[in-house]
Amino acid sequence: MKIEFRPATADDLELLLAWRSHPEVYHHFSEQDEPLVWENHLEWWQSRENRRDWIIVINTAEQWRDVGSVSVADLETETPEVGVYVGEITSWGNGIATDALNFITDWLREQNYAEARAKIAKDNEASQNLFEKVGFERISSTEESEGEYLIDL
Amino acid sequence: MKIEFRPATADDLELLLAWRSHPEVYHHFSEQDEPLVWENHLEWWQSRENRRDWIIVINTAEQWRDVGSVSVADLETETPEVGVYVGEITSWGNGIATDALNFITDWLREQNYAEARAKIAKDNEASQNLFEKVGFERISSTEESEGEYLIDL
Repeated sequence: MKIEFRPATADDLELLLAWRSHPEVYHHFSEQDEPLVWENHLEWWQSRENRRDWIIVINTAEQWRDVGSVSVADLETETPEVGVYVGEITSWGNGIATDALNFITDWLREQNYAEARAKIAKDNEASQNLFEKVGFERISSTEESEGEYLIDL
Repeated sequence: MKIEFRPATADDLELLLAWRSHPEVYHHFSEQDEPLVWENHLEWWQSRENRRDWIIVINTAEQWRDVGSVSVADLETETPEVGVYVGEITSWGNGIATDALNFITDWLREQNYAEARAKIAKDNEASQNLFEKVGFERISSTEESEGEYLIDL
């Protein structure tokens, strides 16, 4: 499997909305508990600031396709927040999100950030394992519903 | 709301996969009971014959977006099979599927077909009402899990 990352554009909005409207995806988003409404999705897109979004593109059987999204927000701070999801849920478990996190930490290093953070729901063990595998460490209490994770870049 | 229909292309495959992987959408597909796997999706696309697929495109607030799919299969027969779904599930109930069915019955009339059919799951009351509204009539027994509907064009 080959993997690449291209900047998301307004042409990707329908695909992002469809991915983020799947219950197994938005279940892990603290700010969302139902399928997205287009107007809210568009407003989110148009009001983004200090944030970058990429589409994860993979190649299997000599064909490229879009499978998910990786992002970094709060770029005006010293500790930007990283997020990732694989929207093509039948491709979970293939290492795609790991590669995407390595891509984003490399990108942040190149931009001279010294650390990054992530928020992960307490019940999202898969993401906890994923972020810990690439070097994030939990810094908040295990009592909270959402854990704060940090990485030194 | 304005609505148009454009032929689906290979560039739409990720969006079609994402829509068809939502449980509230595939729940009504007799041949599918879980999220789609890319390889199967691609194989379906490449092996299509005597079939046409369109993307439903709507315009609200002066912006166009893709929201679903309408199709017709078995075009080599005298009674092609019509199918429709709105993948953007937060836009259900806005008359989009009704407009799509009217589009496809008009298209079939222009191609000189005299009738068309549809299969609808017994528990899918929304689709039953939708197809009956545009002129389809149930022709199979109400005992079966999937009902056969017919329209004279």
